[in-house]
Amino acid sequence: MSKSRLTIGIIGAGRIGKLHAQNLVHHPDVNLKIVSDIQSDTLDDWAASLGITKTTNDYRKLLEDDEIDAVFICSPTNTHTSIIKEAARAKKHIFCEKPISFSVEDSEETLQVVSEEGVVLQVGFNRRFDPNFKKAFELIQGGTIGTPHIVKITSRDPEPPSEQYIRSSGGMFMDMSIHDFDMARYLCGSEVTEVFVNGVSLIDPVFAENGDIDTAIISLKFENGAVGVIDNSRKAVYGYDQRVEVFGSNGSVTVQNDYPTTVEVSTETGVHRDKPKYFFLERYKDSYVEEINSFIGTILHKRNIICDGRDGLHAERIARAARESFETGQAVKLDTMVPLK
Amino acid sequence: MSKSRLTIGIIGAGRIGKLHAQNLVHHPDVNLKIVSDIQSDTLDDWAASLGITKTTNDYRKLLEDDEIDAVFICSPTNTHTSIIKEAARAKKHIFCEKPISFSVEDSEETLQVVSEEGVVLQVGFNRRFDPNFKKAFELIQGGTIGTPHIVKITSRDPEPPSEQYIRSSGGMFMDMSIHDFDMARYLCGSEVTEVFVNGVSLIDPVFAENGDIDTAIISLKFENGAVGVIDNSRKAVYGYDQRVEVFGSNGSVTVQNDYPTTVEVSTETGVHRDKPKYFFLERYKDSYVEEINSFIGTILHKRNIICDGRDGLHAERIARAARESFETGQAVKLDTMVPLK
Amino acid sequence: MSKSRLTIGIIGAGRIGKLHAQNLVHHPDVNLKIVSDIQSDTLDDWAASLGITKTTNDYRKLLEDDEIDAVFICSPTNTHTSIIKEAARAKKHIFCEKPISFSVEDSEETLQVVSEEGVVLQVGFNRRFDPNFKKAFELIQGGTIGTPHIVKITSRDPEPPSEQYIRSSGGMFMDMSIHDFDMARYLCGSEVTEVFVNGVSLIDPVFAENGDIDTAIISLKFENGAVGVIDNSRKAVYGYDQRVEVFGSNGSVTVQNDYPTTVEVSTETGVHRDKPKYFFLERYKDSYVEEINSFIGTILHKRNIICDGRDGLHAERIARAARESFETGQAVKLDTMVPLK
Amino acid sequence: MSKSRLTIGIIGAGRIGKLHAQNLVHHPDVNLKIVSDIQSDTLDDWAASLGITKTTNDYRKLLEDDEIDAVFICSPTNTHTSIIKEAARAKKHIFCEKPISFSVEDSEETLQVVSEEGVVLQVGFNRRFDPNFKKAFELIQGGTIGTPHIVKITSRDPEPPSEQYIRSSGGMFMDMSIHDFDMARYLCGSEVTEVFVNGVSLIDPVFAENGDIDTAIISLKFENGAVGVIDNSRKAVYGYDQRVEVFGSNGSVTVQNDYPTTVEVSTETGVHRDKPKYFFLERYKDSYVEEINSFIGTILHKRNIICDGRDGLHAERIARAARESFETGQAVKLDTMVPLK
Repeated sequence: MSKSRLTIGIIGAGRIGKLHAQNLVHHPDVNLKIVSDIQSDTLDDWAASLGITKTTNDYRKLLEDDEIDAVFICSPTNTHTSIIKEAARAKKHIFCEKPISFSVEDSEETLQVVSEEGVVLQVGFNRRFDPNFKKAFELIQGGTIGTPHIVKITSRDPEPPSEQYIRSSGGMFMDMSIHDFDMARYLCGSEVTEVFVNGVSLIDPVFAENGDIDTAIISLKFENGAVGVIDNSRKAVYGYDQRVEVFGSNGSVTVQNDYPTTVEVSTETGVHRDKPKYFFLERYKDSYVEEINSFIGTILHKRNIICDGRDGLHAERIARAARESFETGQAVKLDTMVPLK
Repeated sequence: MSKSRLTIGIIGAGRIGKLHAQNLVHHPDVNLKIVSDIQSDTLDDWAASLGITKTTNDYRKLLEDDEIDAVFICSPTNTHTSIIKEAARAKKHIFCEKPISFSVEDSEETLQVVSEEGVVLQVGFNRRFDPNFKKAFELIQGGTIGTPHIVKITSRDPEPPSEQYIRSSGGMFMDMSIHDFDMARYLCGSEVTEVFVNGVSLIDPVFAENGDIDTAIISLKFENGAVGVIDNSRKAVYGYDQRVEVFGSNGSVTVQNDYPTTVEVSTETGVHRDKPKYFFLERYKDSYVEEINSFIGTILHKRNIICDGRDGLHAERIARAARESFETGQAVKLDTMVPLK
Repeated sequence: MSKSRLTIGIIGAGRIGKLHAQNLVHHPDVNLKIVSDIQSDTLDDWAASLGITKTTNDYRKLLEDDEIDAVFICSPTNTHTSIIKEAARAKKHIFCEKPISFSVEDSEETLQVVSEEGVVLQVGFNRRFDPNFKKAFELIQGGTIGTPHIVKITSRDPEPPSEQYIRSSGGMFMDMSIHDFDMARYLCGSEVTEVFVNGVSLIDPVFAENGDIDTAIISLKFENGAVGVIDNSRKAVYGYDQRVEVFGSNGSVTVQNDYPTTVEVSTETGVHRDKPKYFFLERYKDSYVEEINSFIGTILHKRNIICDGRDGLHAERIARAARESFETGQAVKLDTMVPLK
Repeated sequence: MSKSRLTIGIIGAGRIGKLHAQNLVHHPDVNLKIVSDIQSDTLDDWAASLGITKTTNDYRKLLEDDEIDAVFICSPTNTHTSIIKEAARAKKHIFCEKPISFSVEDSEETLQVVSEEGVVLQVGFNRRFDPNFKKAFELIQGGTIGTPHIVKITSRDPEPPSEQYIRSSGGMFMDMSIHDFDMARYLCGSEVTEVFVNGVSLIDPVFAENGDIDTAIISLKFENGAVGVIDNSRKAVYGYDQRVEVFGSNGSVTVQNDYPTTVEVSTETGVHRDKPKYFFLERYKDSYVEEINSFIGTILHKRNIICDGRDGLHAERIARAARESFETGQAVKLDTMVPLK
């Protein structure tokens, strides 16, 4: 692309769409031209407060706009594949929130269209851009810990989502663990070949009532021989718990929680510090900025894409296998699933 | 027991037998009268250096001695059940290293004899007496973290044992993970009902050649609904890695590694500290003293026994289920095994 | 002020002036209209890159501009008092970098003018706005540690400044320790009454050659009876070392260093982590944003000013007493100095 | 000495004398033959409980006993010099608690006698034998941090002593800070040349009533150009606070507090851990064992003595200079004192 600046539109102005808008609106390489959302009542006020002058409730306006180089798809998951395909055919580069879809087949078909149209597609696995995980990745890639043997991920939310959210989330594996599946294969540098799940509902019966779970131990096998485990909970009362450890033949690398401050208080009752940063908006604040920079760098400067559609697809396959393991109570091998083309 | 002091004999003067001897020889409530070992060449010199005047290469000498109140069984595992039974019939109280045997059935039959003879039997799960794990246990029991949801244990040795040791060890689950199985059910306060194992040999082919593994992720389900995971490795180059985390409805409690010193060095290359304490003799030094105190307290002052034969048996059952899961590749429910009487 | 938005000009576009420009240019409550600097060769290019359209090499242009509500004075220290007085007389609100001047008398006379003109003057003690120190301050104010007894500040730069900088810096106390003097009285909630200095030049003879030092232990007495100590070094090879501890009758509160990531690596040589954030631009990044918000809040919403001219004056008096103690080798009481009016 | 085992007597069975007795009674190289104390009522019972069969209330019995190779002097400070001289003349090796005396002149005269008689004299600066401080010392000696520039010691007791103790303690500098004076010169590898004290009484008026203080900042200059600071408090509500930091041209080494366990608890209110180990008996437990081993090694194997009478004398001189600085409010140079011979 010979341009030095991208014109961008955002589709979907929910929590994550608004976050991207804030990060895009003052980006030196970006002209954030327009935001679409089907709920139009508060859209204009919010847009105006950021200095965004153009809004619509029809995302097709963005796709028809010749000035628009790229779109951020932040609408509900069940709209992703159709919008991605339309956007790709309109030759827009695409940043899409995870997951691409709840169906591996739909996702795969969608990626086919993206590939044919030759546009960039980046999936919103923002944690890859977190400075902590990025540093861990680089150390592992650089050989500091030798060959990975064990990958351990702790990923616990500070509080459960609403029942409405739970119902449309696609289940814990597809909604929450999917970030961990991506991180596991990213840090291990190898594909997951088998999944076994111990999943339970211990926090709130609303999960079981919706066929979902809130607590899980997920065992993984990797192609390179390594093994892994993810532990998830929908409610850690002490805050967002996001840690990783990769253990290898020459050592181990860990990512600990991030805290709002480094303040420690010592009193008669002991030594105390604050809870970790509250939730993903605080904990992963920098990563949302960095994933945008990376997307722009891919389009403008032909830099490698850090997480593309195939990465999205791999994580979705693991989520589906996890669901199957939870339902059958047995380990599920990924090569028994329809192979990736 | 109306006595105020115990006369004790040790059977087996290998590494662990010698450790117990050192801790017993100056114990104010103990008269360490005699040590037996089948290898007699260096036994006398070692005993003399500690001020122990009586040795033998026939453990039956201890059992026939009317003055002896209790024996420490530190001989190889395959001798445990027969010696326990003989000792029980000789009305000696028994401290026995783990595991009781490699066979759940043999162990169960042995415990039956112990029960009939009415002697005390304590199994050497020394980690229960480590100040760190003890504190964690007390906090959990005291309700600090609410109901346990997730139990996580990291247990990695600093270096693999010799091939000779591997061959007679009973396999990683029975030799090494068994401590973690005991800790898991102890901290969770509930029995394990299902085991799933991802086991591999990544460190040294000698493990696979002996039908054993050196690296594992072990998933657990507990009767109270909690889930758990143990990760094991036979070789952590940075030293003995012994950590625990129990996550519950009201918070979490962690035990971190112990370090030889608190010294930190900051230089141009970063901030550095030592590796954790090298191995179990250093890391669990205090626990070996405390388990002896507890054993003596049980006999002399009728205090509760902290880990008895049933605890040994439970851990052995989990180890056997882990082995079966490793061999079949599927989850194993413990109630499909011969039930405990 | 009935306005909802401030028009601002920056005087001096060195390192710190440029930093403020970056933070002001996209501030929702600010119109950054113009930047002045006497060196005009690269000014326009830099300004254009930020979207600032107006520049000048005569700061009086800003003062004569009726639209300008407030100025940021980021020029060399020896220009501060005259510009402050001119700006105050032009009824501009003032944000001035520390120190106000190298002369307590000049500073005092300047503050008199500011007071007469009734404009806001905030001094750039940015560390008060650092989330860590702010939290410590709030805890102390809230009574968490009872009455302060001991205040300890460690403040070490990662590398010494250039000789040119040293020559015009006003000396270590006025240039570097002045931040610590402000923090000491801020956290202690009391004025410094006595200063004793152990100052040496150990890092580079260039300091001694310029009558300056590079290493110091500075003892303080406070009006409320507390005692304090600051240790300074111009060169900590492991990076910017910024820690505070306030110890009181009911406990202690500490601020530790901030690190770029939470990553830890364990290898055969020990446990390692990165150096702290490199220098003030990284370590105090958030504080520069917050001090601007506070300044704007004072002007637009009549909020209390967090650090005003008197705070600047107090810190300068301590710096002067420190210099006198260094030169005489004896403790210097602040009430022997010309009293503050 | 051609012996392989030492016969030892203890003079003074207060808290510290009893501690040494416990560590000596089972020492493989020691025959603890006799303990003397002027208060005889509970002495025999306590001795019997440890298996010590011989007691006396006249320490001269020990000195007259030809079998006794060495004595531990644990009686009140005002008895030290006379007993040391008598013991030296009786050709007994001497371990003496700190300080040797409250008078530098008396101490010096006493050391003269020790020197003439050619016996070993070790002073009880046990902290040199603490694994943490020992490691820090070795790293500094090994050049890890380059040339020392700044030595910082935090030393705070968990609670003040009784008024009776305060009255006979010789004051905070001679009783408590003296350990820190020794540590400062030990770690810095250089002699203190100047002392300045900010001393106050903030905790309890009983200190001021007895001409003593409870809180201090003590600034130090060293012969090698380094500077240092000690902060002392008689009451840290969160427990015994014992930390050290030595900062040098190539980095810094720190000793942090020791905790009873590594347990951390995370709850809705934050992350919590225990207070540090309560007081010196817990914190420095290992050091008391090691100082005895070192003393024995010096006598039996002619190893270097780690802290001898001169070390005691140096620390006492600093304590005296600190007192003078506190009384005059000015810095005190040690070369204005009577020089050490």
